[in-house]
Amino acid sequence: MKKLRLFTPGPCMIPEDVMLAMAHPIDHHRTAAFRAMLQDVTEHLQWLMGTNGTCLTITGSGTCAAEAAIVSTMTPGHKALVCRSGKFGERWGKVCDAFGIANVKYELDWGFGFKAEGVRKMLDENPDCDTVIVTHSETSTAAVSDVQSIAKLARERDLLLIVDGITAVGAIPVKMDEWGIDILITGSQKALMLPPGLGFVAVSDRAWRRVDEGSTSTFYNNLKAYRKSMDNFDTPYTPNNVFVRGAQVVMHRLKEEGLEGVWTRVAACANATREGAKAMGLSVYAHDPVDSVTAINIPNGVDEGPLRKSMRNKWGVQIAGGQDHIKGKVIRIGHMGYVDRFDALAAVSALEFGLLEQGHKMEPGAGVAAAQKVLVERLGNK
Amino acid sequence: MKKLRLFTPGPCMIPEDVMLAMAHPIDHHRTAAFRAMLQDVTEHLQWLMGTNGTCLTITGSGTCAAEAAIVSTMTPGHKALVCRSGKFGERWGKVCDAFGIANVKYELDWGFGFKAEGVRKMLDENPDCDTVIVTHSETSTAAVSDVQSIAKLARERDLLLIVDGITAVGAIPVKMDEWGIDILITGSQKALMLPPGLGFVAVSDRAWRRVDEGSTSTFYNNLKAYRKSMDNFDTPYTPNNVFVRGAQVVMHRLKEEGLEGVWTRVAACANATREGAKAMGLSVYAHDPVDSVTAINIPNGVDEGPLRKSMRNKWGVQIAGGQDHIKGKVIRIGHMGYVDRFDALAAVSALEFGLLEQGHKMEPGAGVAAAQKVLVERLGNK
Repeated sequence: MKKLRLFTPGPCMIPEDVMLAMAHPIDHHRTAAFRAMLQDVTEHLQWLMGTNGTCLTITGSGTCAAEAAIVSTMTPGHKALVCRSGKFGERWGKVCDAFGIANVKYELDWGFGFKAEGVRKMLDENPDCDTVIVTHSETSTAAVSDVQSIAKLARERDLLLIVDGITAVGAIPVKMDEWGIDILITGSQKALMLPPGLGFVAVSDRAWRRVDEGSTSTFYNNLKAYRKSMDNFDTPYTPNNVFVRGAQVVMHRLKEEGLEGVWTRVAACANATREGAKAMGLSVYAHDPVDSVTAINIPNGVDEGPLRKSMRNKWGVQIAGGQDHIKGKVIRIGHMGYVDRFDALAAVSALEFGLLEQGHKMEPGAGVAAAQKVLVERLGNK
Repeated sequence: MKKLRLFTPGPCMIPEDVMLAMAHPIDHHRTAAFRAMLQDVTEHLQWLMGTNGTCLTITGSGTCAAEAAIVSTMTPGHKALVCRSGKFGERWGKVCDAFGIANVKYELDWGFGFKAEGVRKMLDENPDCDTVIVTHSETSTAAVSDVQSIAKLARERDLLLIVDGITAVGAIPVKMDEWGIDILITGSQKALMLPPGLGFVAVSDRAWRRVDEGSTSTFYNNLKAYRKSMDNFDTPYTPNNVFVRGAQVVMHRLKEEGLEGVWTRVAACANATREGAKAMGLSVYAHDPVDSVTAINIPNGVDEGPLRKSMRNKWGVQIAGGQDHIKGKVIRIGHMGYVDRFDALAAVSALEFGLLEQGHKMEPGAGVAAAQKVLVERLGNK
């Protein structure tokens, strides 16, 4: 028997009832039933993101939603400080460049998260930047930025703050209104336990003022069109209504678990994985590790390709490798979505099997014992 | 018992095996298995569209795919003749305007299709237009344009021809290479029997030369990125891999039926519906009716809202109303996707029930008898 367990940091595993809800006979989207569904999903998104702002549902990849947020707000005359220390931070800089949006790139080494003091220094050096774009959880490096402090800074200086929350929302604490985030983006295939194909953008009143004061050269990704339709819980273009149906089931699951419950679960799985890795003699790649995904350095003597291949082909456990210049040097294991404590343990166990197969020196059971210890400590009474 | 039968011109009904294939446990997209799946879908798309050109799969609505085609080819210095006689033709003009793309709008009354002679006249008056954008099947009016002759003209004059084939491909004959279309666009939720959420763009070598000679201010919708990834049957951004899995099942179904079989089935259902409507004393809205969807004028004494409501709420038959200025004046019935002869008959039957309920004067059975006659004539031995 080989059971597929998907630990890639997106797509993530999907609950069986969600998959079956999406296999429900398809219906039309210009119906009262769909509007009620989208309203329910939207209200739950507000709860999940911690905002009274507008939550928009866009049919497209997470990149589509992020582009929509950037091009709708970065109208002529504005300039962004783009925080980049990984593939996704780099991508948002490329979006700015493609659309001719003025921007300054703030680079940190991969694996580091952004902090308020570094952002403050860059803003002091670039006083014409009136917007900050930051990736909360940089999926490519598994590093976290201190969005709460950066938001505090943005509020002090009256800057617009755009946050890529694609592997943050529904996995780690993100409190849009309390912290003062202006735009928060997420995607369906991460903590929201859906397939890829929907993006979500939450927009504050301050961000809407920016959108309304300028004009943007875009059509599909113009947030104004989505806002107009959302008055009636509708969409400007034919939506992926099947995934909206799935989203409704997911949202009800998350609501039942509660925000604290979700964050506690994900953090416990992340900590268990990191401690498990250390107990096997491995080290964590990120200087500022995030809890939604863990990047682990491949130790000397272990070959990343065959390791992942065995884990997948022999035991059905799919994890991710590294991207760009860290390809072959790290593996990444997701803790988001439909992953419970026993799944997290399975990932550590499969990693043990893979390492032992390659002759890595370790005591069998050391990894899972360390992981289990963390899980008991953190989740023992839950 | 109330069985839902969806006759809206998108989303269309989805085969049960396709729905269940999409409920298969989700897998990662950067895998050999996904690349093989996308390759298979791509090769079948080439077959379906009649092209050796590049077929690209974009995660987004049909509008997203159409925008990608337009912004990638309409680089600075080019000017489009946009043929508009309905909501979708108008939309492609709006895309041009949003991106500041030079264009001339060629307007016909709603319900009329475009012919080569009209396009020729407009081009003579606007000799700086080097591109024609035309909607093959205008879903809002259920009218067809003569794309074959317009393509002949485009070839004679060495113009780029962009065709919105969203409710044409897989429903009515479209032969991209044979006719000389440069860009052909379609969407997942029409004849391709999938939910909304994927767009497909086929690109000829001539169109690629245009793309490569210019530069476009776009990112997510830049066709170049999709072409680069497609070398390896991959995608530049996380794709809706669940719908690609569904697309593979659909493509194999279509291949088995054969192009002629598909076109014959759809045309028979369309003709049966039109004859059924006439036999009930109704008339067809479009001057140049297309076979993928039929728009029928609401007769005096019948109220469109309650008619559609009864058909849906009492008998489970969902059809569409009109859009914009023909709202309340027409109903639209789709013949695309997972619709066979008996489904088509059910739609006519439900329309009979609805008309009789409102006191419309007709002989019960007249509509379905006329429809059945057409079906027997056209499909009797098939």
